[in-house]
Amino acid sequence: MDTQRAITIHTTQDGREHFGEYGSSVSLLDYLSKHTPFTLHAPCGGKGKCGKCKIRILDGDPSPITEAEQTLLRPDELSAGIRLACVTKPETDLFISLEGEKKLQGNKSFLFPHPLPVDGSLRTLVLELIPPSLEDQRSDHSRLLSALVTEGLEIPIDLLPDLPHVLREGQWRATLIAHKNRVLSILPGAPAEIPTSKLSSRIFGAAVDIGTTTVAAYLFDLHTGEHLDSQSELNAQGAFGGDVISRIQYALEGPDNLKRLQEKILTQIDELIHRMAIRTGIPPAQICMACIVGNPTMIHLALGLNPKYIAEAPFIPVTTEPLLIPARELGLSISSGGIVRIPPAVSAYVGSDILAGVVASGMADGSTPPVPQPRLSSSFASHVSRFSDSPLAFPALLIDIGTNGEIVLGIGDRFIACSTAAGPAFEGAQITCGMGGVAGAIDKVIRGTMSSNSEVSQGLMFTSSTKHNLSFTTILNAPPVGFCGAGIVDLLAILLEAGIVDETGRMLSQEEGKRQGHPFAEWLITHEDEPAFILVPADKSGTGMPILLTQQDVREIQLAKAAISAGIRTLLKKANLTFDEIRTLYLAGGFGNYLNPRSAVRIGLIPKELEGKIKSIGNAAGLGASLALLSEKIFSLFQQVRERTSYIELSSSSEFQELYVEEMMFH
Amino acid sequence: MDTQRAITIHTTQDGREHFGEYGSSVSLLDYLSKHTPFTLHAPCGGKGKCGKCKIRILDGDPSPITEAEQTLLRPDELSAGIRLACVTKPETDLFISLEGEKKLQGNKSFLFPHPLPVDGSLRTLVLELIPPSLEDQRSDHSRLLSALVTEGLEIPIDLLPDLPHVLREGQWRATLIAHKNRVLSILPGAPAEIPTSKLSSRIFGAAVDIGTTTVAAYLFDLHTGEHLDSQSELNAQGAFGGDVISRIQYALEGPDNLKRLQEKILTQIDELIHRMAIRTGIPPAQICMACIVGNPTMIHLALGLNPKYIAEAPFIPVTTEPLLIPARELGLSISSGGIVRIPPAVSAYVGSDILAGVVASGMADGSTPPVPQPRLSSSFASHVSRFSDSPLAFPALLIDIGTNGEIVLGIGDRFIACSTAAGPAFEGAQITCGMGGVAGAIDKVIRGTMSSNSEVSQGLMFTSSTKHNLSFTTILNAPPVGFCGAGIVDLLAILLEAGIVDETGRMLSQEEGKRQGHPFAEWLITHEDEPAFILVPADKSGTGMPILLTQQDVREIQLAKAAISAGIRTLLKKANLTFDEIRTLYLAGGFGNYLNPRSAVRIGLIPKELEGKIKSIGNAAGLGASLALLSEKIFSLFQQVRERTSYIELSSSSEFQELYVEEMMFH
Repeated sequence: MDTQRAITIHTTQDGREHFGEYGSSVSLLDYLSKHTPFTLHAPCGGKGKCGKCKIRILDGDPSPITEAEQTLLRPDELSAGIRLACVTKPETDLFISLEGEKKLQGNKSFLFPHPLPVDGSLRTLVLELIPPSLEDQRSDHSRLLSALVTEGLEIPIDLLPDLPHVLREGQWRATLIAHKNRVLSILPGAPAEIPTSKLSSRIFGAAVDIGTTTVAAYLFDLHTGEHLDSQSELNAQGAFGGDVISRIQYALEGPDNLKRLQEKILTQIDELIHRMAIRTGIPPAQICMACIVGNPTMIHLALGLNPKYIAEAPFIPVTTEPLLIPARELGLSISSGGIVRIPPAVSAYVGSDILAGVVASGMADGSTPPVPQPRLSSSFASHVSRFSDSPLAFPALLIDIGTNGEIVLGIGDRFIACSTAAGPAFEGAQITCGMGGVAGAIDKVIRGTMSSNSEVSQGLMFTSSTKHNLSFTTILNAPPVGFCGAGIVDLLAILLEAGIVDETGRMLSQEEGKRQGHPFAEWLITHEDEPAFILVPADKSGTGMPILLTQQDVREIQLAKAAISAGIRTLLKKANLTFDEIRTLYLAGGFGNYLNPRSAVRIGLIPKELEGKIKSIGNAAGLGASLALLSEKIFSLFQQVRERTSYIELSSSSEFQELYVEEMMFH
Repeated sequence: MDTQRAITIHTTQDGREHFGEYGSSVSLLDYLSKHTPFTLHAPCGGKGKCGKCKIRILDGDPSPITEAEQTLLRPDELSAGIRLACVTKPETDLFISLEGEKKLQGNKSFLFPHPLPVDGSLRTLVLELIPPSLEDQRSDHSRLLSALVTEGLEIPIDLLPDLPHVLREGQWRATLIAHKNRVLSILPGAPAEIPTSKLSSRIFGAAVDIGTTTVAAYLFDLHTGEHLDSQSELNAQGAFGGDVISRIQYALEGPDNLKRLQEKILTQIDELIHRMAIRTGIPPAQICMACIVGNPTMIHLALGLNPKYIAEAPFIPVTTEPLLIPARELGLSISSGGIVRIPPAVSAYVGSDILAGVVASGMADGSTPPVPQPRLSSSFASHVSRFSDSPLAFPALLIDIGTNGEIVLGIGDRFIACSTAAGPAFEGAQITCGMGGVAGAIDKVIRGTMSSNSEVSQGLMFTSSTKHNLSFTTILNAPPVGFCGAGIVDLLAILLEAGIVDETGRMLSQEEGKRQGHPFAEWLITHEDEPAFILVPADKSGTGMPILLTQQDVREIQLAKAAISAGIRTLLKKANLTFDEIRTLYLAGGFGNYLNPRSAVRIGLIPKELEGKIKSIGNAAGLGASLALLSEKIFSLFQQVRERTSYIELSSSSEFQELYVEEMMFH
């Protein structure tokens, strides 16, 4: 045999299968991210540091176990065939399984119970054309333009390829959908002609929130504002790093990397939109607008813009301007004349997602009345009132704890914003047993027993010799597989109360616990030479492995909470306000949905004075994007808010640095 | 050996080599057109009918010789390893050579000896920006816009990716090139700063003429109008058919075919432009405009528009409108903000290439004075005067004999146009020994001996027993390999004079020639059961095979000349004009360069009355495209001419049909 056979990889995840050739990939992570539809998350960017890109070898011989895996994987994981994809290569054909979290379930985020407000910026024109003949050989385009001559509308070149088919299918009647002077879509026939198929005269739009961790998409009827469907998934760029900095590093490492990141996210957005179209039976050609928000790095990557200068002082994005981009340029296969609204951003670390939160919370509707416009105000106000008891509940704070922690302080018609490099700890990243808010994630931990009417999972009761029981719930009541952010905060608050973790963040060792006769002592172990606390023993966990919080995890949370807390305090100092003067704290992001305010206060994430003022507003970025999709006036409102916002660069603020050190303690 | 090795094809042409896997290609033609950079021409669209896609098998085993090849190839070709790529597959690895005509040489077409007129539609703005700092973190885009605020210029999104690099390389100075409100290019620095590199402040443009057979591109300095370089090649779509109808058929046959045709031509245009950039040392980023003309089918294919309705009555193009398209949308890798001007067309068969001819000839400058504009008139008029003795030499005819034969009659400020389905016979296609105007093509045939100072090739003297010698010249004096159109016309005129071909187009058989004792009798042979006339015997030809004109070739020419002649007569009848009233006959296209007017009159292609009025204007389409590239006013002039042009649909004209039958005879 002188010919070398190619190595084949058989991959499976959630019943989906894929066969492919390993080719010249440098690792299984590289192979999976480039050549398969599966997404494996590697918050460290595939550097063998975070231990998250776990795969299970079901058959075949992989390369030998590396030192990184010896460190990052437990012996029981290694013996179960678990490997890290970033440092593993195949030596023979392999059969591997991904036990990932591709599908998000049980997302409690905002569900749009009522239609959202729309405005009249879309026009519908019905045209009747003279059919062509040997005596009238005008081109389809010329024929259409001459029928439109008084309208002064532009027909984008992207609509031309479908024009012959559309005009002939509609027998020389056509319905044009236009936004300002631009025709977004040309549909065959006139709506009234087709009473049996009312769908054909409807047009749709998609709002998209690109989170560093999660991408969410929402489908709307553009005429009625009715919400039709939602879809969300972990960001497909996850294999290239868990936070914006590691994505930026990846983008800068190789000449095609930026393009690869762009393709990953645009393909994912296109798939999410198409999945919603299929689920609702809507022709993608009738989806003629999209609105995409995200933090500036996510928007840069989606637009193929180099994020290099976002990552180095003085932190300059390529663009923070509002943009209107033909959908075709982004490879979105919706109506070929469709446009994509990209709302503006404030700075390199305060993006359109945060402005969306300001708009969605009602904070944008401050003491300056002209926005929202009168014709919108009733429905908009009714919507806003769901969040704020009074439309003028100022001063107010908005905190979005996602992969970063952005904070906006609204004082009348002005805003002050900052961004803290909180890291993704509250999203479960860089936490040993951390995970996103998906099925099986522990989202609540209490001392004692849950009352039976709360969402109790198959509760784990600590029926050891102690009286100190801990109970928890998991998302969707699935068997526990790890912690989401809220669960970590709860457990840490309990451990602080119980003296297992002291105010410096130090965790008792097993030996110290026993010496003190601490009732939790038996749940303390030594993990990687440091103390760790087991919440769920291996035999009760959904993974067959214990679920634990380590000393290192506590340090990660400690850094993150210090950053956010110091950020809040810096903004208040700048505005010369006290906590008592703040009337509302809007908590945006999935994390806020599950967070127990008392625990958040206990660990020092949120100042005690604000505990009773917290309003969790769920995926405010998605709601804000949806509002801007449906209304040009709200799209413009983003720009108005941006112009009224001052950005505080914390990296050069000595005030912040001092507060950060102070807030490092668990007081 | 249980593994099947892939079949490898080693291809060579003009010293270029390519190795590739045959894969799942259906024929070698299919393989060559999809997987190699080589272009093989198959006027019949690869249907095994035209016999043009010849390749030579140098090594390896191809599939058995087919019936089509038995018919279309001569025994000496078959024994020399010549095969038709469209019906041949490999049975083993193959080493093949293409003896094609990829490179055009000796093109006598217009060479732009003087700079062409430019107008002032391009603006140059030099900006000095405040460098960013932690106190001024505006994005690059916002920074640029605020410096531009009084200008109201739009920065296309395609310029954003390069913006960070450009601004930093220029140390926050930048030079913007704008056309109307659109920024086409942003160059680093201010021109005056860089005296050593004057090139950096220059901007360039490319004019392109997409012929069905040949694609030509011209590079200009957009400020000075100076012509810098030209490149031309056979149209890379050639493998998918020789004329517009076979290309359209191919486009309609498969779902990806239109896209494939589009990619072929856009890639070729991009390559031609880049080759000129390399030859002249110009950075492609400084090429910020292109202007593309072509017949409507070529333009449709280049824009990815379905040409279906061009090919069926009532012959309706998707668009005939002037278009401005971002270069990025067409995949042209020139300045990322660059734009492409697509001048308008008249109808499905009278395209922007013909309007370009009208403009280039000076015919557009009729009795209506406002165009060209006064500021252009001096240089424009000096240019035009090279072609027309008087700028008002009306009525005038323009004939473009290419793959089709388009005719425009100009009468004062009005134009009448028609298109005849003349077929590509005059371009050498569908002619047994026909070829384009490339090295070795016989372009002139006379009775007797050439005078020594004319461009005589290694003359073939018929030193047989007769006194009737024939001499010929070839392009670039290369050894004769076939006929270009002008050579065919000359030879046919001689054969008509000599009585070898009679007025019905019938050629004497060898036997008849001998019986008559005709001096040419010994050069008559029987070819595929029909008479043929050998001009160059095998031992004197560059291919080792005789160069001959067959009875079938005469029939092809007969149909083509009848169509054009009848078209001319139809237009004159419509305008109620006689031939004597026509003051100029502009002959556009490469064919016209070589054509002997006397021979053209003798075969009936051109009416005798016009013989002395012929002005050959070479590649008028390329010149017209260049003028429209350099001047927005001339780009607009196309639209004005189009609006003043009436199109006559010959397919429904009984007048034309009658004339066509009449003109079939060689009177």
